[in-house]
Amino acid sequence: MSSNAQVRIDAECGAQSAATSIPLPTHWYHFLPDLPVALPPVKDELTPSAAEVAQRVRPAALLAQDRPADQWVPIPEPVADRLRHIGRPTPLHRARALESALGTGAHIYLKREDVLPTGSFKLNSAVAQAYYAAEEGRTTLISETGAGQWGMSVALAAALLGLDSEVFMVRCSLAQKPYRRHYMELLGATVHASPSPDTKFGQQLLARNPEHPGSLGTAISDAIQFALDFGPGAAYLSGSGVPHVYLHQTLLGLEVQAQLAALEEPIGVPGRGDHLIACSGGGSNLCGLVGPFLKQAGDQGRDLRLLAAESTAAPRLTAGRYQYGRSDLAGFTPEVLGYSMGPDFVPPPVHTAGLRNHHSSSTVSLLRHEGLLDAVAIEEKRALEAGRLVLRTEGFLLAPESTHAVAAAIEVATRAKEADTDPVLVVLASGSGLLDLQSYGEVLLGSGR
Amino acid sequence: MSSNAQVRIDAECGAQSAATSIPLPTHWYHFLPDLPVALPPVKDELTPSAAEVAQRVRPAALLAQDRPADQWVPIPEPVADRLRHIGRPTPLHRARALESALGTGAHIYLKREDVLPTGSFKLNSAVAQAYYAAEEGRTTLISETGAGQWGMSVALAAALLGLDSEVFMVRCSLAQKPYRRHYMELLGATVHASPSPDTKFGQQLLARNPEHPGSLGTAISDAIQFALDFGPGAAYLSGSGVPHVYLHQTLLGLEVQAQLAALEEPIGVPGRGDHLIACSGGGSNLCGLVGPFLKQAGDQGRDLRLLAAESTAAPRLTAGRYQYGRSDLAGFTPEVLGYSMGPDFVPPPVHTAGLRNHHSSSTVSLLRHEGLLDAVAIEEKRALEAGRLVLRTEGFLLAPESTHAVAAAIEVATRAKEADTDPVLVVLASGSGLLDLQSYGEVLLGSGR
Repeated sequence: MSSNAQVRIDAECGAQSAATSIPLPTHWYHFLPDLPVALPPVKDELTPSAAEVAQRVRPAALLAQDRPADQWVPIPEPVADRLRHIGRPTPLHRARALESALGTGAHIYLKREDVLPTGSFKLNSAVAQAYYAAEEGRTTLISETGAGQWGMSVALAAALLGLDSEVFMVRCSLAQKPYRRHYMELLGATVHASPSPDTKFGQQLLARNPEHPGSLGTAISDAIQFALDFGPGAAYLSGSGVPHVYLHQTLLGLEVQAQLAALEEPIGVPGRGDHLIACSGGGSNLCGLVGPFLKQAGDQGRDLRLLAAESTAAPRLTAGRYQYGRSDLAGFTPEVLGYSMGPDFVPPPVHTAGLRNHHSSSTVSLLRHEGLLDAVAIEEKRALEAGRLVLRTEGFLLAPESTHAVAAAIEVATRAKEADTDPVLVVLASGSGLLDLQSYGEVLLGSGR
Repeated sequence: MSSNAQVRIDAECGAQSAATSIPLPTHWYHFLPDLPVALPPVKDELTPSAAEVAQRVRPAALLAQDRPADQWVPIPEPVADRLRHIGRPTPLHRARALESALGTGAHIYLKREDVLPTGSFKLNSAVAQAYYAAEEGRTTLISETGAGQWGMSVALAAALLGLDSEVFMVRCSLAQKPYRRHYMELLGATVHASPSPDTKFGQQLLARNPEHPGSLGTAISDAIQFALDFGPGAAYLSGSGVPHVYLHQTLLGLEVQAQLAALEEPIGVPGRGDHLIACSGGGSNLCGLVGPFLKQAGDQGRDLRLLAAESTAAPRLTAGRYQYGRSDLAGFTPEVLGYSMGPDFVPPPVHTAGLRNHHSSSTVSLLRHEGLLDAVAIEEKRALEAGRLVLRTEGFLLAPESTHAVAAAIEVATRAKEADTDPVLVVLASGSGLLDLQSYGEVLLGSGR
């Protein structure tokens, strides 16, 4: 029927208010051809190979989307309908009250993924992946989750498409975050602690250490093992780190482009130091935002900088080594070249589980290695203080991961003030912090567990 | 500047999607003159009188709004700006997937107050009250809260207006719901447990019982006592039960009227059994929704029914007596005529703190007494099951209070199916359940505390 889905853009807040509308993008954008050099080859030497594993457990349509024939990939209408249903396009919010509190002339825009029903941008790819899985007759979505945001999105996408879901959640997170488990279970998901007694891989780990706390690496391994053993109805989905997820998340950058155009706000103006800023864990919110802007960022006549905000707890992009490594423990995924803390690195137990990866994706790492991407490591307390400032000024609470991007933006705005420039800063508000109030309380209010 | 704030209306979900837009209403609607008979007089016989107390602690502009000269009360532009800033108008969501799951021909619309940044409709009145308090030079907002939704709204409204806030929260809720406390404290609010050692009233209660769990009655008394002793900078605010709050909440019904008109969806069609449905605690979301429709509902040529969903834990409208009573314990508020469980009634400890009042507001009670308002008592588990169904079909999680209205709507839709009619049902989704996942978990998933 009609597809005139509209979104309110808070162009101004406080004393003045203006709004404009954009339609949902009709295509995703395959930005890998815009990288300055080709992605380095993966190492895939185990048996079975990671490629073989992927072909068994991932929907074929998604593997095809890792290397689309055209850069513009049409969004199937049923996926577009789901994206509108969950609230896309999301608002691009001009944070005037925050600007005013900072005393900056910078224009700070927050891309509000926190308003999606699962409270994070992860849902964008989950609904697309669930659609392709259902189209191929698969009955059961299987995935891993660290803090729970991706698992919540998989569980909701499965429910909306009438599919089952099985989610392997890092054991220590599962104990700390019962709310996210409840949410998944209400949707009908089966939630497993990882290491899991329900997989061969998990059984081996638990035999050596019955109290194993788990990690994203164990959870990925458990989920793929479970999918391999499940049979043909299984669809293993990733929340980040693979090209088709980045493709789905390009909605972020594409919507921002259309929204800035609708606001008549140019970006990349020479001499002004305009920035696109996102936190970086697995890289999907960062790549989704900056991917559609890569040509502009590489254009010498423009001045558009890309900035990744990482956690000082896992400072791969600012302090890691460029080396091969993999994200799972069992060897189901290939080794990729990326900035890494090394395979044995155990990050301190910060609240921002989404930024605790030990190894960066090859795409993000390549952008960094080629000098297209700046990076800054933000300490957790400073990040959450930036989140508190957004709450007090703008009225919404962001996820701890997202507050790293805000803190980075505040740093850029402060430097711009000293340099007497007024840049445009687009900050990806990747998620909501309502289910992270315990973390805010512990770090900023000194509340005990 | 421009005031063309737009809102997306999800007219259809799933396979089709359409959208339309309405502007923010320019006026609130004073509906009390539309009541079939005048409100009965209050009893105000103590010293100081409740009227004197109100004049000392409440902003004068708000007391004036209890009896406005005109039925249409202009919304001051700074308040309108704040209302747009927090996301008004909110969507009117056609719940087609829910309809489909129910196998009903009814058109079920959810008025989505859950998307507001504090997660409930309470914020609508908080921003208005904070504005008038600031205009009168008051520095500190003082109020009570049961489960925390109103307190969160007061704390956010204070922060957005640059005011301080002091919130008295029922002691047992404060212990059970640390997230809501953290939220208020992040905003700079001082949160007191009630009974509070910081007021004379609270000191007296604690002297008799140091472990007093508190109630909404103790919290109102503590807050008013604190405001009386605070001095001229104090502004005591109510979240429900008083006419100016109902006035501010008429945005709900006014937006629904404009949204249904934009969708070309008539309501009140004879023979169809159309309904407006809201849960009822203090009555503000119910009155805000139905107030602008009272003339229609009283029109014999139309067929528009108003339905209050209450909790079986405090079934005042379905099983209470019509008698005088008051909402606080200290005698700071007047006695009003309303349906009541009696002053000594202690409701069982259900999760829906917003529906545990022992005494109904005089406005809601009058509507019921005059036969304009139907009522149904919903058992907590059935309500939360309705909430789970909305989550699985539509993708968003409603507050336990709101799920009582959904359960009532499902009951109406089921009866309509038997009667072979396809009514329009507008259900007020008064709040988000993300911070109530523990309640869902305990009741539906059998998780322990």
